[in-house]
Amino acid sequence: MKKDRMTTVTERLTWRYATKKFDPTRRVPDETLERIVEAVRLAPTSSGLQPFELLVVSNAETRERIRAVAWNQAQITDCSHLLVFAAWDDITADRVNMMFDLTNDVRGFRNEGWENYRRQLLDIVADRGTEANYQAAARQAYIGLGIALVAAAFEEVDATPMEGFDPAAVDEILDLKSKQLRSVVLLALGYRAADGDWLVNLKKVRRSRADFVTEIT
Amino acid sequence: MKKDRMTTVTERLTWRYATKKFDPTRRVPDETLERIVEAVRLAPTSSGLQPFELLVVSNAETRERIRAVAWNQAQITDCSHLLVFAAWDDITADRVNMMFDLTNDVRGFRNEGWENYRRQLLDIVADRGTEANYQAAARQAYIGLGIALVAAAFEEVDATPMEGFDPAAVDEILDLKSKQLRSVVLLALGYRAADGDWLVNLKKVRRSRADFVTEIT
Repeated sequence: MKKDRMTTVTERLTWRYATKKFDPTRRVPDETLERIVEAVRLAPTSSGLQPFELLVVSNAETRERIRAVAWNQAQITDCSHLLVFAAWDDITADRVNMMFDLTNDVRGFRNEGWENYRRQLLDIVADRGTEANYQAAARQAYIGLGIALVAAAFEEVDATPMEGFDPAAVDEILDLKSKQLRSVVLLALGYRAADGDWLVNLKKVRRSRADFVTEIT
Repeated sequence: MKKDRMTTVTERLTWRYATKKFDPTRRVPDETLERIVEAVRLAPTSSGLQPFELLVVSNAETRERIRAVAWNQAQITDCSHLLVFAAWDDITADRVNMMFDLTNDVRGFRNEGWENYRRQLLDIVADRGTEANYQAAARQAYIGLGIALVAAAFEEVDATPMEGFDPAAVDEILDLKSKQLRSVVLLALGYRAADGDWLVNLKKVRRSRADFVTEIT
């Protein structure tokens, strides 16, 4: 049973590809979308901070505006839903405390080791500064992206990650500054229009295991 | 069938946790490890560059040395295999050309659009500079980390991501500089020793959907 399950993970990763042409008439059902979103919400993150948020954009006009600052990529308007991964613009004391307090609330007790760790982490993020904190938060968003890609593939939902956009412009369109967030990466979700997609039938390219993995035994 | 599969992805993410105590007597079987490694190798990356590599460390002495520069975290030596995600220290023209040439080799033809994109990308990475290229590469490594976490959970292998280490020291221990790589994040793989693990029975903490997701409809 375990083997069957895992064959499925690699099989699903082999099935997926960066869809270039979505079918604009097909919408991802709400319950399907929710399972993908839930997988992202469950993503583990450094110190459990979840230092990013997810925007789910279906509004047509908003997507037109994003497309205009994203190399005019048609997937942004043709897909069913556009996910925007937006990282905390800083890891502030308030945000650290919010997550540590939430942990105490959920678990129903305070723990000395945990409180010591809170103080250590508060020192680290204060020393590190805004930009380095944002960069650290942005990396965590990519854990969510990796998980979203697998979750979408399990749903037979096509997914195209996109970094080709003007982050400052997207932040403005989505009013992210007021939420103290910065856009990091986009993920278009929907269904391939295979007839118009130049990539769909081309071989997936990855370096060989020998060129990718080193074993230290 | 689709619904069953997806239930499994979120169920697997719910099952997993950042294992604090591994059973040092249990080894992940080679074929199991290979399926996790293969999932990482299949991770999609920006422009298909795969700008990171994976080191699989089982050697006991090497792991002792890493533990010494990683807050003495016991998982590093108690786990079965330690994965080290190491990003390219720069995205050089040679590396871009290597991946674009590989693509042409695998697909068996040259494509004008693809060659134009190669030139655009070469300009972008030359303009961006070494440090920004490394940071971009490091983010891609986290896509691999996210996928590894799901793949391990499907194998019922416990996995603990770790950022608490001195990257320069780990680079030296693993001689990454000579490979033009920089260590980014660790992932300990193995099997929980639940009796000695303070975290195993505590509730998973995540912000509510309302505090994590914004819909723009």
